[in-house]
Amino acid sequence: MRNIKLLIEFDGTNFLGWQRQKEGRTVQGCIEKAILKITGEESLINGSSRTDSGVHSRGTVANFFTNSKIPGNKFREAINTKLPDDVAIIKSEEVDMDFHARYSSKGKRYSYTIVNRYEKLSLGKQYLYHVRYKLNVEDMKKACEYFIGTHDFRAFMSPGSSAKTTIRTISEFYIEQEDDMIKIFISADGFLYNMVRIIVGTLIKVGNGKIKIEDIEGIINEGNRKKSGMCVPPNGLILEKVFY
Amino acid sequence: MRNIKLLIEFDGTNFLGWQRQKEGRTVQGCIEKAILKITGEESLINGSSRTDSGVHSRGTVANFFTNSKIPGNKFREAINTKLPDDVAIIKSEEVDMDFHARYSSKGKRYSYTIVNRYEKLSLGKQYLYHVRYKLNVEDMKKACEYFIGTHDFRAFMSPGSSAKTTIRTISEFYIEQEDDMIKIFISADGFLYNMVRIIVGTLIKVGNGKIKIEDIEGIINEGNRKKSGMCVPPNGLILEKVFY
Repeated sequence: MRNIKLLIEFDGTNFLGWQRQKEGRTVQGCIEKAILKITGEESLINGSSRTDSGVHSRGTVANFFTNSKIPGNKFREAINTKLPDDVAIIKSEEVDMDFHARYSSKGKRYSYTIVNRYEKLSLGKQYLYHVRYKLNVEDMKKACEYFIGTHDFRAFMSPGSSAKTTIRTISEFYIEQEDDMIKIFISADGFLYNMVRIIVGTLIKVGNGKIKIEDIEGIINEGNRKKSGMCVPPNGLILEKVFY
Repeated sequence: MRNIKLLIEFDGTNFLGWQRQKEGRTVQGCIEKAILKITGEESLINGSSRTDSGVHSRGTVANFFTNSKIPGNKFREAINTKLPDDVAIIKSEEVDMDFHARYSSKGKRYSYTIVNRYEKLSLGKQYLYHVRYKLNVEDMKKACEYFIGTHDFRAFMSPGSSAKTTIRTISEFYIEQEDDMIKIFISADGFLYNMVRIIVGTLIKVGNGKIKIEDIEGIINEGNRKKSGMCVPPNGLILEKVFY
């Protein structure tokens, strides 16, 4: 038995998310079907992140066990020949048997992109969240500072999570702006369910003046989901990297 | 009678290009249908650029004549309510009766984006041309210099153009690189049919060593289409701006 690690990119637009479902097109489902065609084995793959429908990825990691004799680095091209256009294996390699894409993960990095303009948006909609009212990006940048560090983030979580603890450590959180594009980068040792999207929704409320920068600390400490921002749409979100 | 000028953005992925056709979905066709719904008039719109199927735009300009009493700046929202998601009116205004989106144009600016990596591409494919072999971007940057200025560009034109002269003036031509993204910007007083895409195809042959930088001048002067590069795919191309 061997353990194969995959680095995966996908466009989430036409997927019902990562996780295999009985009905519907998922990234995990597509990759497992491709592996079955190549090895003849019904492999279950472990994914680093069960991203939601519409979320994209440049950095999902997965692993699976196989008896196949295919060299580790050859799985990339082999699996790609059996995959649709909107999912790609970027790298494949054989790893130690104890490597697990999810449990071995030490952290993740996401980006979220907002286009901030009054005018209707028609180009790149599947990768952008369109905010029509003017955002104060300088205030949003200052607000990022309050999230960095180890906190209980239960105010920034959707129901349905099985997380044992809601304490996480955000190591990096910053914004780059170019013209009407606001690109947000966030890294942590792990994220609660919808945490990135709710934190971005909270930043947007800072940007439109509905939450004051100095209130962020209290919102984190109080831990009340009703005080944080909306869960912004999935299409602006890209999983950039998983750390091991 | 009044003359209304429109600034238009569209995602070309699901359009058979700009120009109205008897069958099939075109940008011009969609906008003319929207204007009919609003004004009750069968207006023909003049477009600045008859972009091909799959080409995108942030800057197409069009004008049309109308007897409608709708204020010039109100056409934007009115037309947008009748348009599909992948085309947007960014601005509308009343202009002098002698303004013509195509004949009054003094120049255009395009961008073309290449992603240069060996790995399969799944994300953003509709806006990127994927080149898998390594390109020498420094050589491509140097080659740009030879195109700038007034030249006969008949070596960089597909058949089917009704242009009276093949002489054009390129005022700006440069490349920005960020990681594996190669973004090319080119401005001219006008472009021959497929001229941007064939010039980019020629740059790619410089980038992979099949054309030497010092041979560019001769290729331009000789005017032989067989010596220039391929016409690269439409999806990397965006019409950025039309100058008046």
